[in-house]
Amino acid sequence: MTAPDLDIAGRMDGAIHRLPVRVYWEDTDAGGIVYHASYVRFLERGRSDFLRHLGIVQSRLAEGTGGVLFAVRTMTLDFLRPARLDDLVEVTTRAVEISGARLGLAQAVRRAGEDLLTATVTVAAIAPNGRPRRIPSDIARLLTPAPPA
Amino acid sequence: MTAPDLDIAGRMDGAIHRLPVRVYWEDTDAGGIVYHASYVRFLERGRSDFLRHLGIVQSRLAEGTGGVLFAVRTMTLDFLRPARLDDLVEVTTRAVEISGARLGLAQAVRRAGEDLLTATVTVAAIAPNGRPRRIPSDIARLLTPAPPA
Amino acid sequence: MTAPDLDIAGRMDGAIHRLPVRVYWEDTDAGGIVYHASYVRFLERGRSDFLRHLGIVQSRLAEGTGGVLFAVRTMTLDFLRPARLDDLVEVTTRAVEISGARLGLAQAVRRAGEDLLTATVTVAAIAPNGRPRRIPSDIARLLTPAPPA
Amino acid sequence: MTAPDLDIAGRMDGAIHRLPVRVYWEDTDAGGIVYHASYVRFLERGRSDFLRHLGIVQSRLAEGTGGVLFAVRTMTLDFLRPARLDDLVEVTTRAVEISGARLGLAQAVRRAGEDLLTATVTVAAIAPNGRPRRIPSDIARLLTPAPPA
Repeated sequence: MTAPDLDIAGRMDGAIHRLPVRVYWEDTDAGGIVYHASYVRFLERGRSDFLRHLGIVQSRLAEGTGGVLFAVRTMTLDFLRPARLDDLVEVTTRAVEISGARLGLAQAVRRAGEDLLTATVTVAAIAPNGRPRRIPSDIARLLTPAPPA
Repeated sequence: MTAPDLDIAGRMDGAIHRLPVRVYWEDTDAGGIVYHASYVRFLERGRSDFLRHLGIVQSRLAEGTGGVLFAVRTMTLDFLRPARLDDLVEVTTRAVEISGARLGLAQAVRRAGEDLLTATVTVAAIAPNGRPRRIPSDIARLLTPAPPA
Repeated sequence: MTAPDLDIAGRMDGAIHRLPVRVYWEDTDAGGIVYHASYVRFLERGRSDFLRHLGIVQSRLAEGTGGVLFAVRTMTLDFLRPARLDDLVEVTTRAVEISGARLGLAQAVRRAGEDLLTATVTVAAIAPNGRPRRIPSDIARLLTPAPPA
Repeated sequence: MTAPDLDIAGRMDGAIHRLPVRVYWEDTDAGGIVYHASYVRFLERGRSDFLRHLGIVQSRLAEGTGGVLFAVRTMTLDFLRPARLDDLVEVTTRAVEISGARLGLAQAVRRAGEDLLTATVTVAAIAPNGRPRRIPSDIARLLTPAPPA
């Protein structure tokens, strides 16, 4: 079950995580292209598998009263080009800043080396009751920011 | 917050619940019509607001160790005609059978009085730990099956 | 079908559009709160019904070779407080800037008068082939920016 | 773009297609488990990649006036056990019957060899205008039904 299996969790390319994502019918809309909110789901898959590659499995991290969850605090999205049904895109994720309870990430959705969407995302560590808390130091250490590709 | 506000929760028409639902971009796919799994979401909205009209607010019902959740056990779906962007459809829901831990429902998605999809759905009562449990008698009493329209 | 029925399309409050939205199971995640990408869907419902109140039905606007679609270009999201299952929230939408091919909007998701999320969104007019085009003047006229509430 | 890349499209095991799927936050609900409609999305991913392995890329198949789309007509779903965040599940798909305009499939979502959900699905071939049409003979030939595993 909740195994840290990395088979379909993409790969680390230095400090950048790369996750291939297929565009299915569920991701598209009647305009014939990928629905804009679908990219937001793709980005979360990228962040989850980036953490998974660092050995951080969120379902375990959240367990117990001392548990930690990461909640999205801010998100800036630039939609540059549309993806379409059957496209194979790549989600890139890298940590850019970490401080106290917050982690800043730079992400993109790319196709054949071309950016379709770029995003900056800030997530905050919270306790299971929703209160902000510091990112535990052993987790923070794993999240060392990487320079751009 | 979790107020039992019925303003946008449709209405009871005898024992049949009727919920108007607007088709937005999020519900469509690149085929130009409503994505088939979107109807499954519409049906759940219908069941939730049907329960709400009976005074059953699921987020409250689930609270505590004696809490009850309804989990879908079986679902049979007939897709008859497509809905499209901007359509105003209606989800109808009625109880057809109740016994022990299970509740059977008949549902449809309609447009201008014409069925787009019909469904039979069985939900089971479970405890917060996932174990099956009897539907509490005060809840069961509210769910008296209704004859078809 | 694609009738401009305004029954469940919220209401204009001066130049601000207000759309009530119910939180269903589909909108939540295993953290017990509304999934962050669900708010992005809520915002799109708000924009669509804002346009609907101005007499702009997107499925019609898109028809034919002279058709116009609105595509999201940029989006800045601040997640302030979580919404939960059964909550009744309100999406507010107002135009803040219009120029050539672009429309800027300010949006929020609120609960009991308190902001849960604020967003600034830029949409661009495109032709059915994806090329940018000017917002037609009759549409632009309807989108006169409104002052904040 | 719409490349028939099979890298993340699972694999054929005899006539059975097997697609690994990761459970992300987007797939779960406030009950702490996978939302029931998410499995319907998983099944469609399985069908799309099953077709992809047969050389059938739906976005291309749909092109032109002689194009073909597959639309879901009936679906029977049995929800047996819940999946959870971070689970790695497998979607299995095999053709069981083909006749004229209809294709019958047997599908399942499994975890560690155990069925979580079983489904029988009928899809129909339609023209871009929505009218039923025969499945083209070159496509039909590829869809030879397979015996159960």
